[in-house]
Amino acid sequence: MTTQIGILVVGNEILDGMVLDTNSQWIINQLKALNLQVSEKMTVRDEAKVIARAIRRMISNGDNLIFTTGGLGPTHDDKTLMGVAMAFELPLELNDAALRIVTRQYADMHQRGIIGTSEITEPRRKMAILPRGARPLDNRVGGAPGVVLEIEGAQIISLPGVPGELMWIFDNQLLGLLKGKVEGAFAEDVIYLPLRDESTLAPIIDEVMQEVPGVYIKSMVKPYGESGIRLWISAGGQSQAEVEERVNRVANLLVKRCEEQLPNS
Amino acid sequence: MTTQIGILVVGNEILDGMVLDTNSQWIINQLKALNLQVSEKMTVRDEAKVIARAIRRMISNGDNLIFTTGGLGPTHDDKTLMGVAMAFELPLELNDAALRIVTRQYADMHQRGIIGTSEITEPRRKMAILPRGARPLDNRVGGAPGVVLEIEGAQIISLPGVPGELMWIFDNQLLGLLKGKVEGAFAEDVIYLPLRDESTLAPIIDEVMQEVPGVYIKSMVKPYGESGIRLWISAGGQSQAEVEERVNRVANLLVKRCEEQLPNS
Repeated sequence: MTTQIGILVVGNEILDGMVLDTNSQWIINQLKALNLQVSEKMTVRDEAKVIARAIRRMISNGDNLIFTTGGLGPTHDDKTLMGVAMAFELPLELNDAALRIVTRQYADMHQRGIIGTSEITEPRRKMAILPRGARPLDNRVGGAPGVVLEIEGAQIISLPGVPGELMWIFDNQLLGLLKGKVEGAFAEDVIYLPLRDESTLAPIIDEVMQEVPGVYIKSMVKPYGESGIRLWISAGGQSQAEVEERVNRVANLLVKRCEEQLPNS
Repeated sequence: MTTQIGILVVGNEILDGMVLDTNSQWIINQLKALNLQVSEKMTVRDEAKVIARAIRRMISNGDNLIFTTGGLGPTHDDKTLMGVAMAFELPLELNDAALRIVTRQYADMHQRGIIGTSEITEPRRKMAILPRGARPLDNRVGGAPGVVLEIEGAQIISLPGVPGELMWIFDNQLLGLLKGKVEGAFAEDVIYLPLRDESTLAPIIDEVMQEVPGVYIKSMVKPYGESGIRLWISAGGQSQAEVEERVNRVANLLVKRCEEQLPNS
């Protein structure tokens, strides 16, 4: 089945002009490297009914992969999961796996002295209450797990609105799922760079992604038992030869630029 | 009748990640100063059917003021007006007033040496073809007029996607219409500043708008028969006393900051 993708941006802060939505552009560009195209985007306020209605509309438009961004947090106006549950008439219930993520994150933040108590208060517990049948996506940056719900032949993937959390979950929890949806040609390569510091690499990656658009580059720092940095490079397109050439070009560019940097790193 | 506002962003370039949509945030913030709130935003591809469907949905959601951005230009993929016409089953026809705007703009660009011919070619003529019953909004920045269509108790306002053109039309052609929709308290003031140069003023306006949110400041340079710069300051809110105080505070701040700048300007 062809994947048809919709993005639902949830948040009064967007529709009141306080925050510029950059998350959806980031998601779009990551999907592009997997040869996946977004068909529509909707932006709605923090109201469960309105969120539910938007999801129903996307489903009736034929979207079978729907990303929601925002509204997963601990406060009363974080209503995305309530909206998802309402869209499919599902009850909301405490999810044990989600609760373990929330508990670990607050214990970790407490240990690092960021927060005063690791107690799972009612607002924190709220983030582990998911629509029945949904599963959490680990979040190691913030407190709110992402959520995947598979229903009616569609997948609803809910991500937090905080860009760093959204990006971490996307990069670390969703690529397997998304790679299964790639159509047409797809190529990937994993390379190792002898850099010690990811911050040296960041501008190089930015530069190369500008030079060769439509390529996804993911850096994986400090893998167990290895020194250096591991990079996953992937691209999608129509012709297998072309996407392989594109991935190779990026791999070569990255190696070359890193070698130029080595004396300074 | 209460005004309920939707924004429809049209453009593959947005959904393909090439361009970040900043127009809708700009519109939202201008409306906020008039105490008008946006209820939803949709972003769709350049397909007439999809545009028409989105407009129908907004109408059925209760939106009675719909802004569209993008898709008014001369190329074959500029299909917003086709979508608007389709949404209301209207024919598209050459609009004389729109054609006069297009003709004047290309004559002007030709005179200024920007383009080689002022001839109204088929692509240029396309920008004057509007849904029956619509009227054009003057555009003195680019070639494509904005368009207002009043139908089924709603107003559909179509603006070009180029930010400078969108802003010019909004500032110069729409404020009268929008001021008629203000509910609750509203206050405005016009002040004159003895500056010679608008560029000196721009950072001061930015600074003051940051300090006092929810205020609209429009500068009008070189009005006929006057020296200096004229500023229109307006704000909406719940309490008349509060919005008047807010507008006064802004007026005073602007005068003070400009006086501080005067020796350098």
